[in-house]
Amino acid sequence: SDRQAGQDGRTGESGEETSEFGQLGPVSHGPRLGIGMDSCVIPLRHGGLSLIQTTDFFYPLVEDPYMMGRIACANVLSDLYAMGITECDNMLMLLSISQKMNDKEREHVMPLMMRGFRDAAEEGGTSVTGGQTVMNPWIIVGGVATVVCQPNDFIMPDGAIPGDVLVLTKPLGTQVAVNAHQWMDIPEKWNKIKLVISKEEVEQAYQEAMLNMATLNRTAAALMHKFNAHAATDVTGFGILGHAQNLAKQQRNDVAFVIHNLPIIAKMAAISKAGGNLFGLLQGTSSETSGGLLICLPREQAARFCAEMKASRSSSLGQDGGIGDGQQAWIIGIVEKGNRCARIIDKPRIIEVPYRVSACVLCWSLASFCHSCLSTLFVGWSGDLLNCLSLNIDGFLRHFFQL
Amino acid sequence: SDRQAGQDGRTGESGEETSEFGQLGPVSHGPRLGIGMDSCVIPLRHGGLSLIQTTDFFYPLVEDPYMMGRIACANVLSDLYAMGITECDNMLMLLSISQKMNDKEREHVMPLMMRGFRDAAEEGGTSVTGGQTVMNPWIIVGGVATVVCQPNDFIMPDGAIPGDVLVLTKPLGTQVAVNAHQWMDIPEKWNKIKLVISKEEVEQAYQEAMLNMATLNRTAAALMHKFNAHAATDVTGFGILGHAQNLAKQQRNDVAFVIHNLPIIAKMAAISKAGGNLFGLLQGTSSETSGGLLICLPREQAARFCAEMKASRSSSLGQDGGIGDGQQAWIIGIVEKGNRCARIIDKPRIIEVPYRVSACVLCWSLASFCHSCLSTLFVGWSGDLLNCLSLNIDGFLRHFFQL
Repeated sequence: SDRQAGQDGRTGESGEETSEFGQLGPVSHGPRLGIGMDSCVIPLRHGGLSLIQTTDFFYPLVEDPYMMGRIACANVLSDLYAMGITECDNMLMLLSISQKMNDKEREHVMPLMMRGFRDAAEEGGTSVTGGQTVMNPWIIVGGVATVVCQPNDFIMPDGAIPGDVLVLTKPLGTQVAVNAHQWMDIPEKWNKIKLVISKEEVEQAYQEAMLNMATLNRTAAALMHKFNAHAATDVTGFGILGHAQNLAKQQRNDVAFVIHNLPIIAKMAAISKAGGNLFGLLQGTSSETSGGLLICLPREQAARFCAEMKASRSSSLGQDGGIGDGQQAWIIGIVEKGNRCARIIDKPRIIEVPYRVSACVLCWSLASFCHSCLSTLFVGWSGDLLNCLSLNIDGFLRHFFQL
Repeated sequence: SDRQAGQDGRTGESGEETSEFGQLGPVSHGPRLGIGMDSCVIPLRHGGLSLIQTTDFFYPLVEDPYMMGRIACANVLSDLYAMGITECDNMLMLLSISQKMNDKEREHVMPLMMRGFRDAAEEGGTSVTGGQTVMNPWIIVGGVATVVCQPNDFIMPDGAIPGDVLVLTKPLGTQVAVNAHQWMDIPEKWNKIKLVISKEEVEQAYQEAMLNMATLNRTAAALMHKFNAHAATDVTGFGILGHAQNLAKQQRNDVAFVIHNLPIIAKMAAISKAGGNLFGLLQGTSSETSGGLLICLPREQAARFCAEMKASRSSSLGQDGGIGDGQQAWIIGIVEKGNRCARIIDKPRIIEVPYRVSACVLCWSLASFCHSCLSTLFVGWSGDLLNCLSLNIDGFLRHFFQL
């Protein structure tokens, strides 16, 4: 399908990391970061401030337009979060509407996608004040995130030292989950994996992946400061290994990253094996969309970092942590002396990350978000309330009963 | 063709002006501007500074990829220039590569387009530090321009008063010129206009349009401060009337804009008439790409503004004015008391703007830029020198002989 082609066709999925853009301009005062990492950092002419920004756009990869909007926004903001930035001053939205949609489809799909994007921006404490919309054969959704920072607001991704440990804040396997979900309708594809997973499990894995992709890395960004992170990046188009290598290259010290553990959405490793090492998931090369942060932390801080990530309603941001509440994080490797490279050990431990129970308040079916139908049933309810309803029954109950 | 469809299909050609993005967020301190005008203005948390940014992307509309890159960049920056901003702190480039191109086409076209974009950014005193590239059925080129400003660096577009005059800094008719150029190869289209224009004239008009679209509005932005401009916008997708109306709506005072004169690239009005009022050029609704600034100026300043625009090598920016040297500007209307609307008088005066003489140094053919062939002939020459060569023979001679 077009969508499939679009996914496969992307050449620079993760913002600044594309090499298409060549060399940097002249170096000025203050830290500067150009092509190659998650965001660019430009020293400003005013009072030691820095302009930090990033852009990202891609093609839909989940069927729910509202969730797709949330994912696109989470993916854009993630490049700021990877630098320990928790605030965003402005967002622009980049959209294209497919020519192939009729008026009715367009009027149904695009407002939901834009609303998902806006809701995620709001959860990130920012808002969308502009953008551009064009017609195109394919739908495109993305954005630009910009912040003006003081020196202490961000953490340059170059300070890892031997002895640090590597922490990952979301499980891997989103690409496998999204594709497996499409394969349920394609017999020749489905036959290859049906021995290792049921359709119900694929549905759950897909919902889990969607929930993870829509989760902001904002809590992790805040905790990077609290626990003295030395460097971080977010895991997107080049997979965990690609981004680990990219981050290693950026380091000031002679370090190497060694990954021992791969936390993966349950059953996705089995699918990958059954399909003949699909997408290179176990080699760390499978693309992720809106993946977790990969963070270099002092060894003595890492366990507390993970514990605080998991603590319900993180207070790090001084507010409701949103759908990121109770996120898990894993220590996945170590930083040792070396020549700025990264590798996965021969037989990494696969951590099967179970699906969370998430129920629709209407039908109580497992792992069903039903945002679209909720919108029509609860006309006039706030977007915030609908999000709680559709994404997180606990959050909904807390919100609704003011617990 | 796809390209044609792309041009016609655009829904929000000019950045922030699209209405897809709905309402503004909560109002904070300092001037704020959201959806509706050229750039968004966000008050920052630091020292009275404002974040001003804009994004724009579209499909190629000229055949020369280098010039297309320049035009795309000029079009993005123009939204800042419309606010009297002359500096840009950072640019991001947004690109999609057409799947339909083979490797050779891709390797020829995309670097030239990126180089055109970069060269125009450099001429604007800024540089490109990031972006995103994807595969797509159609080529897309665009960008994001961002600046952090002090209050005096920008002019909010809302201060027009009765008695002001309206000045336009580029001629109209780019859409007609670009389309007429395509129609030379389509007999049924060409037959409709061949009585009023020759193929040589179409070629000249096309080159003139391309040169205008690639010209930065930076000199005009600098002169807005010098001559105390009250408000401005740039003329793009909605045509001169659409943008005049949009600007009128934004005004604090009870004003109306009345347009008396329409400066149009020579012969384009005749083509429009011959084709049965093609694109509504004479009604002011024909799209422009990277058009001029429409500026409300105090009556006593306007003539001097125009004279200084035309003065060779404007010193307003304290540097070489680049290809914008000697731009013409026209007083096209007046600001009177009224209810924030804009109109064109019944029989506006059409100002036929002649084609400039611009010759290729190789063949001396009129109005030929030949940048691609120059690049191959003058391997190793600086981009700056090649630009002079291809765009401006006077500039080339000055540059080459250090005059």
